[in-house]
Amino acid sequence: MPALRWGIVSCCKASCDFAEALTSFSREEHVLTSIASTSMKTSQEFSKKYQVPNAYETYDELATDPEVDIVYVAVIIPMHFDLTKSMINNGKHVVCEKPLSFCEKRAKELSILSKIKKVFLMEAMWTKCFPAMDYLAEEIDNGTIGEVLFVHVTYGRSSYNKKKLNLKEIYRGVIMDLGVHALAFQEQIFRNHVSTKVLTAGHLNNQDVDESASCIINYPEGKTCVIAIHTCVDLPNEAIIIGTKGTIRIPHFWFPTKIIMPRETKKFPLPEGETEVSRVVAFKYLIEEVGKCVEDGKLESDRHTHASMLQVVHFMDLWRNQLEVIYEVDDS
Amino acid sequence: MPALRWGIVSCCKASCDFAEALTSFSREEHVLTSIASTSMKTSQEFSKKYQVPNAYETYDELATDPEVDIVYVAVIIPMHFDLTKSMINNGKHVVCEKPLSFCEKRAKELSILSKIKKVFLMEAMWTKCFPAMDYLAEEIDNGTIGEVLFVHVTYGRSSYNKKKLNLKEIYRGVIMDLGVHALAFQEQIFRNHVSTKVLTAGHLNNQDVDESASCIINYPEGKTCVIAIHTCVDLPNEAIIIGTKGTIRIPHFWFPTKIIMPRETKKFPLPEGETEVSRVVAFKYLIEEVGKCVEDGKLESDRHTHASMLQVVHFMDLWRNQLEVIYEVDDS
Repeated sequence: MPALRWGIVSCCKASCDFAEALTSFSREEHVLTSIASTSMKTSQEFSKKYQVPNAYETYDELATDPEVDIVYVAVIIPMHFDLTKSMINNGKHVVCEKPLSFCEKRAKELSILSKIKKVFLMEAMWTKCFPAMDYLAEEIDNGTIGEVLFVHVTYGRSSYNKKKLNLKEIYRGVIMDLGVHALAFQEQIFRNHVSTKVLTAGHLNNQDVDESASCIINYPEGKTCVIAIHTCVDLPNEAIIIGTKGTIRIPHFWFPTKIIMPRETKKFPLPEGETEVSRVVAFKYLIEEVGKCVEDGKLESDRHTHASMLQVVHFMDLWRNQLEVIYEVDDS
Repeated sequence: MPALRWGIVSCCKASCDFAEALTSFSREEHVLTSIASTSMKTSQEFSKKYQVPNAYETYDELATDPEVDIVYVAVIIPMHFDLTKSMINNGKHVVCEKPLSFCEKRAKELSILSKIKKVFLMEAMWTKCFPAMDYLAEEIDNGTIGEVLFVHVTYGRSSYNKKKLNLKEIYRGVIMDLGVHALAFQEQIFRNHVSTKVLTAGHLNNQDVDESASCIINYPEGKTCVIAIHTCVDLPNEAIIIGTKGTIRIPHFWFPTKIIMPRETKKFPLPEGETEVSRVVAFKYLIEEVGKCVEDGKLESDRHTHASMLQVVHFMDLWRNQLEVIYEVDDS
């Protein structure tokens, strides 16, 4: 199979980390061929730094570039929908930053379109691609902690860049930014259950952007998930999975490299050349998963299916609606 | 001041612990003069074991006993209201087990009646009488952890006696039994704030009794409390108080003898003669507080005011109503 040829749209910090992660793969597997931003200067600087053959100053040029098989979409959230749609329509596979779209209706449209166009589509939920998550799933399936009845996930940082919350037009409220991680985590645990009740609350800042939020999700058979996310204080920042026979704790669950089991702490080695966990490491796991899926001709990843993405954005819609965090383009 | 003369109604396990706690005080301070249950045999056995001069087989006899100044009400929850009312009407001070009454309306009636009759009335919320709670309040007031924005309280035990949940007539659902502790804890932290939103959820067992429950309470200025209580799994069982400058953790918050501050762990010595924390220890702290209040002619304790009790039972009403855990006598 020939190398998977990547294009990246936007030259943000995440794009840099993604490009760096790509360079750790052999050029027979993954190769970064094209970069696009809305500024030629920025694209050229990026292409020079990461040795990218093609640099563009419009996203359309990248969308129609025959040397691109798959696109990593890293633009701001309000642009995810249009840009991902354009890439799919041009026959490109897409890995889109979280969330795939700001609302369930449009995320669903993208999911359907990708299946019609027979291209691979995945939200960049790298957490689910960490080896620790395989171990976790196995241990839960094996019944190590009995029946899982309670999941508690917290994600909050006092060091959060508050400036982002004052730019409502980029949709970086705490729900879209940190909530998506917490929801995706619990979705993996309770994937086979349909929620019976979702209660959501939160606080807005003086720009009417969500700065902290909490939710309770009830599932059948006495199962409960409680989530708290925050941009003003440091929360415990762990996922706690509690079953009838014991508890599993995952510190910094969005970068899971250590799992505290009832009787032992399991640590997972980082990829070669890495000394500490980072977004680059996370992207390496993600790229590996994406490479396998595309090679196998899959249109979605089993680790983070379209149904999973839609479930997460469904909860985000409920959460935002309850807090009345409504964006200009909301029409559903 | 003469010794405070106690009467106890019911000969349950809590009554035994209370009697034992009373014996640790000098007879010049506290003395147990009377015991009542609905069985003369049981009362006499109790009176023999704890050397109680008067044993009765009706609660009325104790209510009219001139040798009793104050009554500890330890009967089952459905009887709290009538019995406490009767004791107050007979001019007795009352310490009533948690919750004072099963609903806000009746708890309020008892509060008003006690003020009319000029007797002391307190719910046996011993947690608030532990020395650790004074230290906690001081540290929070001093701003050690900045502005408190998030409180998380969990209380759940897989060893919980499930039989209690199958006897709906004794009102021992998880909300009344464990929820009351969690709600009272957060009430102490957020006492000066009026909730802006209360969201409650939970699961019922096959007897329609609440076996697990969660709630989110929002307060102004971005303050949030999240509570989870459970009778099927072991929860982390700690109170976590998170401010803009740090976190305080209190393991087993209902018996607070250790407070984990951002930079040190503060341990609190137990009363003389005690080697581990227990309900007897808790009652000692409670009795000490009650003694001071009565000596000072107070009608309520500053540690757990009538307003605090009413706030807690108000939240419990909301919680129960949402879960449709309705008792026969509910009429409000």
